Amino acid sequence: MPRYNHRTLAQMRPIRITRHYIRHAEGSVLIEYGETKVICTASVIEKVPPFLKGAGQGWLTAEYGMLPRSTGERMQREAAKGKQSGRTMEIQRLIGRALRSVLDLKKLGERTIQIDCDVIQADGGTRTASITGAFVALCDAVGYLRAEKIISENPIKDHVAAVSVGILKGQPLLDLDYAEDSSCDTDLNVVMTGNLGLVEVQGTAEKVVFSRQELDVMLDMAQQGLQELFDLQRKTLETAAS
Amino acid sequence: MPRYNHRTLAQMRPIRITRHYIRHAEGSVLIEYGETKVICTASVIEKVPPFLKGAGQGWLTAEYGMLPRSTGERMQREAAKGKQSGRTMEIQRLIGRALRSVLDLKKLGERTIQIDCDVIQADGGTRTASITGAFVALCDAVGYLRAEKIISENPIKDHVAAVSVGILKGQPLLDLDYAEDSSCDTDLNVVMTGNLGLVEVQGTAEKVVFSRQELDVMLDMAQQGLQELFDLQRKTLETAAS
Amino acid sequence: MPRYNHRTLAQMRPIRITRHYIRHAEGSVLIEYGETKVICTASVIEKVPPFLKGAGQGWLTAEYGMLPRSTGERMQREAAKGKQSGRTMEIQRLIGRALRSVLDLKKLGERTIQIDCDVIQADGGTRTASITGAFVALCDAVGYLRAEKIISENPIKDHVAAVSVGILKGQPLLDLDYAEDSSCDTDLNVVMTGNLGLVEVQGTAEKVVFSRQELDVMLDMAQQGLQELFDLQRKTLETAAS
Amino acid sequence: MPRYNHRTLAQMRPIRITRHYIRHAEGSVLIEYGETKVICTASVIEKVPPFLKGAGQGWLTAEYGMLPRSTGERMQREAAKGKQSGRTMEIQRLIGRALRSVLDLKKLGERTIQIDCDVIQADGGTRTASITGAFVALCDAVGYLRAEKIISENPIKDHVAAVSVGILKGQPLLDLDYAEDSSCDTDLNVVMTGNLGLVEVQGTAEKVVFSRQELDVMLDMAQQGLQELFDLQRKTLETAAS
Amino acid sequence: MPRYNHRTLAQMRPIRITRHYIRHAEGSVLIEYGETKVICTASVIEKVPPFLKGAGQGWLTAEYGMLPRSTGERMQREAAKGKQSGRTMEIQRLIGRALRSVLDLKKLGERTIQIDCDVIQADGGTRTASITGAFVALCDAVGYLRAEKIISENPIKDHVAAVSVGILKGQPLLDLDYAEDSSCDTDLNVVMTGNLGLVEVQGTAEKVVFSRQELDVMLDMAQQGLQELFDLQRKTLETAAS
Amino acid sequence: MPRYNHRTLAQMRPIRITRHYIRHAEGSVLIEYGETKVICTASVIEKVPPFLKGAGQGWLTAEYGMLPRSTGERMQREAAKGKQSGRTMEIQRLIGRALRSVLDLKKLGERTIQIDCDVIQADGGTRTASITGAFVALCDAVGYLRAEKIISENPIKDHVAAVSVGILKGQPLLDLDYAEDSSCDTDLNVVMTGNLGLVEVQGTAEKVVFSRQELDVMLDMAQQGLQELFDLQRKTLETAAS
Repeated sequence: MPRYNHRTLAQMRPIRITRHYIRHAEGSVLIEYGETKVICTASVIEKVPPFLKGAGQGWLTAEYGMLPRSTGERMQREAAKGKQSGRTMEIQRLIGRALRSVLDLKKLGERTIQIDCDVIQADGGTRTASITGAFVALCDAVGYLRAEKIISENPIKDHVAAVSVGILKGQPLLDLDYAEDSSCDTDLNVVMTGNLGLVEVQGTAEKVVFSRQELDVMLDMAQQGLQELFDLQRKTLETAAS
Repeated sequence: MPRYNHRTLAQMRPIRITRHYIRHAEGSVLIEYGETKVICTASVIEKVPPFLKGAGQGWLTAEYGMLPRSTGERMQREAAKGKQSGRTMEIQRLIGRALRSVLDLKKLGERTIQIDCDVIQADGGTRTASITGAFVALCDAVGYLRAEKIISENPIKDHVAAVSVGILKGQPLLDLDYAEDSSCDTDLNVVMTGNLGLVEVQGTAEKVVFSRQELDVMLDMAQQGLQELFDLQRKTLETAAS
Repeated sequence: MPRYNHRTLAQMRPIRITRHYIRHAEGSVLIEYGETKVICTASVIEKVPPFLKGAGQGWLTAEYGMLPRSTGERMQREAAKGKQSGRTMEIQRLIGRALRSVLDLKKLGERTIQIDCDVIQADGGTRTASITGAFVALCDAVGYLRAEKIISENPIKDHVAAVSVGILKGQPLLDLDYAEDSSCDTDLNVVMTGNLGLVEVQGTAEKVVFSRQELDVMLDMAQQGLQELFDLQRKTLETAAS
Repeated sequence: MPRYNHRTLAQMRPIRITRHYIRHAEGSVLIEYGETKVICTASVIEKVPPFLKGAGQGWLTAEYGMLPRSTGERMQREAAKGKQSGRTMEIQRLIGRALRSVLDLKKLGERTIQIDCDVIQADGGTRTASITGAFVALCDAVGYLRAEKIISENPIKDHVAAVSVGILKGQPLLDLDYAEDSSCDTDLNVVMTGNLGLVEVQGTAEKVVFSRQELDVMLDMAQQGLQELFDLQRKTLETAAS
Repeated sequence: MPRYNHRTLAQMRPIRITRHYIRHAEGSVLIEYGETKVICTASVIEKVPPFLKGAGQGWLTAEYGMLPRSTGERMQREAAKGKQSGRTMEIQRLIGRALRSVLDLKKLGERTIQIDCDVIQADGGTRTASITGAFVALCDAVGYLRAEKIISENPIKDHVAAVSVGILKGQPLLDLDYAEDSSCDTDLNVVMTGNLGLVEVQGTAEKVVFSRQELDVMLDMAQQGLQELFDLQRKTLETAAS
Repeated sequence: MPRYNHRTLAQMRPIRITRHYIRHAEGSVLIEYGETKVICTASVIEKVPPFLKGAGQGWLTAEYGMLPRSTGERMQREAAKGKQSGRTMEIQRLIGRALRSVLDLKKLGERTIQIDCDVIQADGGTRTASITGAFVALCDAVGYLRAEKIISENPIKDHVAAVSVGILKGQPLLDLDYAEDSSCDTDLNVVMTGNLGLVEVQGTAEKVVFSRQELDVMLDMAQQGLQELFDLQRKTLETAAS
């Protein structure tokens, strides 16, 4: 069972992160997991949601969307339909939780980082690419806040990144593309911090259930992929801004 | 750290399942996980969604809601607000996937089982109680279809149930109530089938990340609780209808 | 023409009121008019709507809903549809007006009593059961406000309850169940206070018009049923809280 | 307590009905109850709602709206707000029921009469004026259907009209204007057919309850006003189209 | 190619403006361009939108709607559908811009003039009639503000009016009715001020493109029609209020 | 008054068109007008809207959106807000009309070309860039239909492109960037076909009216810019697909 582009089972697709992709945003990247392409922006907004008024801390929230023709068949535009799908809401809640897990909201002060992840081309793994890319955008937005002396301490506690793993005909596979994702029995999304702490583990088996042993194999494989992603995040962030 | 009502760390709350709770529905139960109370109904609808027209199979879908005053502070009514929250959508998608994992949709024939889970009193674990209870309602709806000779073979392949586990100050806890859930570092929802296959594993750590070892301890504890739930489901289903 | 369960024409269905039904609410009851079952809660909210800011008085408002499978055929969930039907709006406006008619809003102070009536099983008369039950929940919420010394004087001026009457093939019938309501020529809902003052009289004849004489007969019959309801409310409220 | 324009207690405001007011509609009138002005149109639509497909009968449905500045203070436009208020829904349901009570839906055939009542200037009694005016528009739409030989028999069984009555400081008043309606204790809307059958009786007492005797007085007064309205409808319909 | 009612190519339909049409509004007119009839009201609202809080200036905004049966075939009611169409939004934005172009917002003070244009009968040119009529309603609302000594200086800098021109089979036509508008190749709406300055020029050619020469001819024709409209506005405003 | 990047008054910003930008779409480009960047896709959908069923012709429709952080300050996401703004609707209607003006809908056959224009970075001129870019995407979608032998004749009759012109302190300026657009007195969007026919002329003067002479100067300047755009479209379409 060869994978597309001769990938091995435990091999990620080529990952690329382009910083400073949208000129207006305090942080912005284009992240590519193979043919999946997501624009992630981090915007600084000088207020907090009502439930945090006067609480002496900040907030981070995320929104997610797909361009209508990012997919093989055109999807209906959510703005035209007048509401976001359950899938969209689920993904944007996941992105928000993942990034808040590495952010010291007290050090951020009374402001909000608004993350926007917009998929311009989809080929599987849009939620994991969004998290990995949004982390870099977040770092750049925080860099802006520190350069402008708006905050003094770094509120970012660790890296965070995400990858998917699946089981297809008994074989574990890292970083599923769309075709693999569609035919897979089990699908596991793993979000980890740089020190290998688990933030989110979301495994789903609609067709064939999975065993504890399979879960372990998938988690090992995910961890290996995540280490590559942390390396890439670090390397990307070391380069000076374009 | 004693738990409310002298529960031990690995002890479930008292679970009660009352069948035939709503007279109109083909299947209906009231399920109680301690003070959490959910009405689960399974309705037989003699059509399938458009994407399955003519596909020679059935479907199961689920909706979830909370009465406005099921919670400590009154929540806004979603019908009045004009939309369902992201949390609601996430939960109803989870319930649907969990139940479909044990249902042979071909044997169901071209019809839909519509599950409705409505929380009348909430004290943590509403999504796990919904899944465990909805399974019993599903069995009764299928029993109706067989008694009426609408289908001949049993489309239900196995039991399915769900429970939550958490880590609070380093200690794993089974079946969290609301107070525990709110103060917990990590929260894991586990959905399993009767033969101990994993269907859904959803672990979330917004405050403190968790390790692979902690995940293992939590999964062990969940499995133990789920075995109790499968026993209760079996015992409940053995009794003749009221 | 015998009625279901051998009721006479002027006989109510068995009525049951269970107080303290939902633990979180300041007042809550399960009310049953035969097979019709409604959960009524009264929540104290420490603010008033904008149009009453600073007016030195309180407010009472009501919302109404039906669980999707409370009915013989599953109804679409209003939260999923994104709006409340005209029927729902009409009923919740009626419940609010009925309860405000016996409430001294000045004595309530600048706070709102939010009534929620949720039908868990429907068999005709859901709006009348809602009013009768919500009155008891209101009394318990007011009891809470007085026990907590939040208000000193009792703002409740009188009892209020409701019942339906109809004319079926020339015969007047008290407290219609669903089958009777559907086949009835005329349908009259009557809301009265304990001193037999009329609050709402809503008579509708879509099929056969009714005469002044028939209206009189129906009002007499309603009044008789309402006296039973006031007695039951009194007896229920005399018992100490569970 | 003199009334505006020296009306006596039992005197209607000047009523005017102008037929053929909107050139495109099959039936259309401008109806005026004093300063209240409503455009009522009846449109013939050659299909029935889904629940009547193939049932061999027609339908009549009504919608109601107010121009934003028909009132003393500008109201928000419902189209801009994105939903109709509970009051709007309640009124349009009432108009529909009232007109269906005099229409033989079988004789109408498989088509819908769509009534639209749009208030261009409001001074109390908009719902009663809508019903009285819409009846004339309905007659003209039916006249069109018969002139065009689309239907052969007259589906209109009787006249229908509506008027409000109130009690202000113990005095009954016919046909309330806005100032009277706002200060009134009790408000009763009565819909009757030409042969003096009751179709709708809607009495509401938010401030002071009313007695059976008061209800009787109000119904007598309403009947007297309705007879004037039936006379005017007849006279208006006798004149040839402008 | 004779026009309906023997109009010449460059001849407007009969234009009528009736002031003080709705008693509650500070300014209100019925404007008729032939069979097109629009009620325009100008309401004074003593606040400004959030983006102008404290800016020391006022605002003018406009809304537009059509009665469902103002057209040949009944249109769906936007309030019932739950949203305004793109066409409606486009027109109300145009009306607002046109009237703001002649209004000194500083002299208006911190208040809003809310324009409502509601088409009660449509026969082409509803947006141009709305602008021409709303100008007169605006003048009356400003007259009210000055008579009440709420503002001292006149904020209206010039007249504004609008007309449409089209090209049908190579011939330019002034003030298109519905039939002409539907069959026309090009449609140009022109908004001008009294001193012949251009405010809006909106030319559209869905079927056959137009040349610079044709644009010039159409602009000449529009200007001629607009001069008639300015004359009528002046004459109308000179008459004392009814 | 020098322009940013030393542009002369009649000089366009650097324009770049990148074909085949999104792999899934039948036609797709990234178009850049300086710092304005828009992804335009053309999707082939094998059905027509209801009003064209059986009419023997096709349709083209367009949707437009902006990523929330395409702008200097983050805009609210329309999908989250639940509706598209009036500006969005106006622009997408304009794009649709512009492209339909050069498309022979009969030759297209009974199918729809769905255009999506999504702004990923905004700096003025997003609607004009959308039209110019969408034309190239349309050509590629039509190329696909012809290569696949789905249609035989070319339905594209001519080029179409768009540019904005403004007057700033009396000076005409071609192709306004955001800063220029915001401070400009008059703003004119011109859509033309390759043979210099006018399709849309939309001139707006909210602050200072404009004269016929100024309109002429602006149209001359627009035409000169449009000729450059047609050249670039031709050159781009001549290159083989990447």
